[in-house]
Amino acid sequence: MSFPVHDSVRAVAWDNGALRLLDQRLLPRRVEHLHCKDAAAVARAIHDMAVRGAPAIGIAAAYGVVLAARARYAAAPDTWQQDIEADFALLFDARPTAVNLRWALERMRAKIAGLTGDPGAALLSEARAIHEADIAANRRMGELGAALIEAGSAVLTHCNTGALATGGYGTALGVIRAAYAAGNITQVYAGETRPWLQGARLTAWELAQERIPVTLIADGAAAYLMALGKVRWVIVGADRIAGNGDTANKIGTYSLALAARRHGVKFMVVAPLSTLDSGLASGAGIPIEQRPAEEILTLNGQPVAAPGASAWNPSFDITPAELIDAWVNEAGVVLQPTADKIRVLARPSV
Amino acid sequence: MSFPVHDSVRAVAWDNGALRLLDQRLLPRRVEHLHCKDAAAVARAIHDMAVRGAPAIGIAAAYGVVLAARARYAAAPDTWQQDIEADFALLFDARPTAVNLRWALERMRAKIAGLTGDPGAALLSEARAIHEADIAANRRMGELGAALIEAGSAVLTHCNTGALATGGYGTALGVIRAAYAAGNITQVYAGETRPWLQGARLTAWELAQERIPVTLIADGAAAYLMALGKVRWVIVGADRIAGNGDTANKIGTYSLALAARRHGVKFMVVAPLSTLDSGLASGAGIPIEQRPAEEILTLNGQPVAAPGASAWNPSFDITPAELIDAWVNEAGVVLQPTADKIRVLARPSV
Repeated sequence: MSFPVHDSVRAVAWDNGALRLLDQRLLPRRVEHLHCKDAAAVARAIHDMAVRGAPAIGIAAAYGVVLAARARYAAAPDTWQQDIEADFALLFDARPTAVNLRWALERMRAKIAGLTGDPGAALLSEARAIHEADIAANRRMGELGAALIEAGSAVLTHCNTGALATGGYGTALGVIRAAYAAGNITQVYAGETRPWLQGARLTAWELAQERIPVTLIADGAAAYLMALGKVRWVIVGADRIAGNGDTANKIGTYSLALAARRHGVKFMVVAPLSTLDSGLASGAGIPIEQRPAEEILTLNGQPVAAPGASAWNPSFDITPAELIDAWVNEAGVVLQPTADKIRVLARPSV
Repeated sequence: MSFPVHDSVRAVAWDNGALRLLDQRLLPRRVEHLHCKDAAAVARAIHDMAVRGAPAIGIAAAYGVVLAARARYAAAPDTWQQDIEADFALLFDARPTAVNLRWALERMRAKIAGLTGDPGAALLSEARAIHEADIAANRRMGELGAALIEAGSAVLTHCNTGALATGGYGTALGVIRAAYAAGNITQVYAGETRPWLQGARLTAWELAQERIPVTLIADGAAAYLMALGKVRWVIVGADRIAGNGDTANKIGTYSLALAARRHGVKFMVVAPLSTLDSGLASGAGIPIEQRPAEEILTLNGQPVAAPGASAWNPSFDITPAELIDAWVNEAGVVLQPTADKIRVLARPSV
């Protein structure tokens, strides 16, 4: 079931004592890396979307804590555990919607609580464990999700949920990789995902690296694609899942879920347990990040809209659980998620 | 109720014996005009979307027939009525979905049948009558549609349906102009309308000329906008309406109609009777134009997607009549359109 991931699509790597991030703002035109040497650089890279995708930003933040701890310990070995709270605050605030960021930081903070002496090795080991667990969870989700895909299926995905968005394999795109390797996918449609064009710039690039054929569509064309009977599954990731299964994901996802329900197309969310925010009773409590108007008003730095126009640019929307046929996580598949089912299945490790 | 239309947003004009078209591909960055001196140039301008919008391309085609008739009559005064069929074929084929194009050409052909001698003056008069009737219809629809908009309404529109898309006032945007002038609109949201960005490039520009405030959104954000209760009406134009009220309009419209129904947002189609194709029993018979993949794969001539990606790029979709609360045309308002209601109200003049 597994499918090799091309090395070029590695978003996050620990490299020679620094965090190496593939700068996704430049893709597909240029492959360049950032080398982050302190927590502030990591927070900036997350905020500015050099690295994006809920699992990937969690992993990047965990490595950011390693960088912070090394610097704080070197500067003040007696007070570093208090001093590092400033770095945590910076990293927590980098992006508000993806809960994996908070989850990874809280796991690193829990580790710090038990440390004495130089924290470098222990925290690097913890960050690596988070990273490796994410890849393992992705591969497991790939298997579980692919098992739901009937032979001869065309699927539609949104945004980028592949190796670029995770530790190295993908959530929704991991399922698509696995189902494609199993020979069950005839066609991958990808919404271009305005305004940031993650579908066109990242998903198409990532699939092209591995020679999986992909057909892009304008986001507004998805409902018509489904009306024509051209897809069997919509498969997406998630940035935060509330306790009742309501799911925050990239803006446009909710629209896909409405069209899917109308046309009997099945709707799958693929996201690790670290995406679950069981403290929230419903999606209404999920904070939705508002991004700059310029993402709508300009393209590649060129203005596209007339001067004087403003823009409303929420980065995520909420899909109610009732529109979701399956939430695939590393512990199993929750069909038609509800609060009761999630409570039983999902026991996050932190 | 009427609202002045700024002269700069005149898409189509007869100017000194030629057809002057505002080249909408260059907006909002440059205001330049094409001067079409023969039918081939008009057909090319329609095909390449220098002029677009169902009513505007009908009017442009009518003037194209004037140019063709002058040339054919000058070349062969005895056979020009047969010779001009080649020009009709060229113009008919320029774009397949908007039925106003066919309607205008058939009206010009009917006029030709009764002519003797030099046809120039009579055909120019007929093209001008089509043009003026479109403006009058727009203003009447503006009044009728605006009467449906409650005070304090925010509205969402899609694509461009304003002066740029018509003889000079607008269909859906005409209603918005009139309702704004009446003080009933608090906010105009405009979907940017990928891939061609008519919303960002044209609607925002046109509204900015007249100081009507506009907020752009990514097309995928519309369902979330409605979920938040931020709009009361979706107001769109149409390229072809089948006998049962099913409506072909710019890709993305169907998705808006699904979200509107889900959230109790009302959905208005504004289109003149020339948009009705009463020969079609339902939307299933409407031909849907497929545009080049490059419109998705590139932006401002720059590639945005990785090499190897393909694209599916239908220019229109079909909104079923059951999702439409009102079709506003110049003869009146058809609430919850059905074949029976349309048969009674709509008696096209050709």
